[in-house]
Amino acid sequence: MTQLVDVTNMCRWIDHHGVEKLIAGILGYIEEDFARWEKFDKIPRVASHTPIGVIELMPTSDSIEYGFKYVNGHPSNPARGFQTVTAFGVLADVDNGYPTFEAEMTLLTALRTAATSAMAAKVLARKDAQVMAMIGAGSQSEFQALGFRAALGIERVRIFDIDPNAMEKFRRNIEPLGIEVYLADSVDDAVEGADIITTCTADKAQNTILDYSLVRPGVHINGVGGDCPGKTELDPRILDDATVFVEFPPQTRIEGEIQNKPEDFEVVELWKVIAGQREGRTSDEEITLFDSVGFAIEDFSALRYLRDSTAGTDFQTFIDLVAEPDDPKDLFSLTSRVLSPL
Amino acid sequence: MTQLVDVTNMCRWIDHHGVEKLIAGILGYIEEDFARWEKFDKIPRVASHTPIGVIELMPTSDSIEYGFKYVNGHPSNPARGFQTVTAFGVLADVDNGYPTFEAEMTLLTALRTAATSAMAAKVLARKDAQVMAMIGAGSQSEFQALGFRAALGIERVRIFDIDPNAMEKFRRNIEPLGIEVYLADSVDDAVEGADIITTCTADKAQNTILDYSLVRPGVHINGVGGDCPGKTELDPRILDDATVFVEFPPQTRIEGEIQNKPEDFEVVELWKVIAGQREGRTSDEEITLFDSVGFAIEDFSALRYLRDSTAGTDFQTFIDLVAEPDDPKDLFSLTSRVLSPL
Repeated sequence: MTQLVDVTNMCRWIDHHGVEKLIAGILGYIEEDFARWEKFDKIPRVASHTPIGVIELMPTSDSIEYGFKYVNGHPSNPARGFQTVTAFGVLADVDNGYPTFEAEMTLLTALRTAATSAMAAKVLARKDAQVMAMIGAGSQSEFQALGFRAALGIERVRIFDIDPNAMEKFRRNIEPLGIEVYLADSVDDAVEGADIITTCTADKAQNTILDYSLVRPGVHINGVGGDCPGKTELDPRILDDATVFVEFPPQTRIEGEIQNKPEDFEVVELWKVIAGQREGRTSDEEITLFDSVGFAIEDFSALRYLRDSTAGTDFQTFIDLVAEPDDPKDLFSLTSRVLSPL
Repeated sequence: MTQLVDVTNMCRWIDHHGVEKLIAGILGYIEEDFARWEKFDKIPRVASHTPIGVIELMPTSDSIEYGFKYVNGHPSNPARGFQTVTAFGVLADVDNGYPTFEAEMTLLTALRTAATSAMAAKVLARKDAQVMAMIGAGSQSEFQALGFRAALGIERVRIFDIDPNAMEKFRRNIEPLGIEVYLADSVDDAVEGADIITTCTADKAQNTILDYSLVRPGVHINGVGGDCPGKTELDPRILDDATVFVEFPPQTRIEGEIQNKPEDFEVVELWKVIAGQREGRTSDEEITLFDSVGFAIEDFSALRYLRDSTAGTDFQTFIDLVAEPDDPKDLFSLTSRVLSPL
């Protein structure tokens, strides 16, 4: 039988442990998997685009376990009462190909995206960073804020969103947890004095959410929302001044901020920094950019963490997904309790 | 909520309707979808190979619905007590990206593979075909036999397998349903007088299950088992004498019998025959070959049929897979019933 963590149990699991502890736990698993990056089967995600959104499959394997995530991205969903992003995922045993674990991943993706951003910022932001600007107060925003507190101790967030209700929602969720929240009246206002700038908007268009003039030396930019062909957030000139770190270059060149740059635009693979093969930030003046699009290995790590953390608890139930006749060559036996030929 | 047909309910559904009726029903849906082939998003399946087997994702979309199947293929599984192939699949709403339906597909794949083979044989086998030779008595064999009776009225099957127990299992399952079964002592013996030859073996190697000398004019070959790089069943000379029909050429050239032929080896796309754009069999002497590998649209059709057939019945249950906060921008609200910062 395949183990299952459904939405109800995912909420209970997060409730039980708290968002920050889980982001920290997932971060550890992602670091572990990024450090053994070369052991993984890697392909760009498999996307089915329509004018209204995208549905994607994101598979990977370390040759012991296989995992994939189903995820959609529909920017117009919230206005119609739906989530922009929903997701679920599966782990399977490479040895016999059986699915072993299925889980909701709408919430888990929010946790793993924050964990990945925080992991990157640990090696790319200045050690004395204290203030984060957040552009975009959507579903991902609270998770980002808590991820940066868990991993870097960030206690002050300056947030801007074109939707004032979304900003209020962010404050309502985050202030009670002891993070100082400033509601900015513009992007310019939000980035004032920020050491880290996180852009996380959902519009599926080539926007300039963050203007070139707003990026000062020493800042770390955590670019989360530019993650789809035709969907970017940064003034392309920012990329010329920054050292750009990416997950899987063949995917990021299609989906990330660097889609606006030539094929040979220089990037650093983040896994090499995690594995100790490359330096992260090299000076207090350097501008660093994590051009995050989300990669299958992060989902694999998050699923592994969830599975391990919920093993043997009532956060897991079962889903009857694998037909198992007594004689493996006699699948037909499962159909023949009552046989009614035409 | 996402609707679910799990293994138990799949068995009940097949029990209730009978294998032949369901194969006929799925066949109708596949014909419908093959006739509108050009409306679909099509890519070769996304495969993760290891020395021991393969795990694949097979997505497609008609721009209204999206579907994918997870499926493995592990030839050494039966000897270890596991199914060679297990599968499950999902349908989703392209408009908002939400998964709407999930189902076990180990049994459903067996039904749809038989339905596809039977659909092809309806336009490719001689109208007076009466006898089928089956090479391979594994999980798929009974479904093939019943599919050919449902669609073509085939009542006589000559079977051969290197495993005598598998042949006995086939006879035990099929004879009570009124099909005449002859257990052959060799491939040569099995194909004697056969109008249709179905090859369906699981070994992951370039084998010659069917020798050139055994193929006589007028025969239709239903080549099911050659479906993976490095896994073929037919003497390549057979392909030179036959008219070769395929599902999706970019996938079949990687996985099918034609992988042993040059890139420009001439094939006919089966959908064109179903859509009435091309002839199927053109004479009683022609040798026709359906080089079947299994394509995503067939799974999409089978999932649609299953969903429609089980709608509003207790063959469907629900799986709690989509997180839905009251405010779609407030995913975080689902985590904050009890908040425990670190």
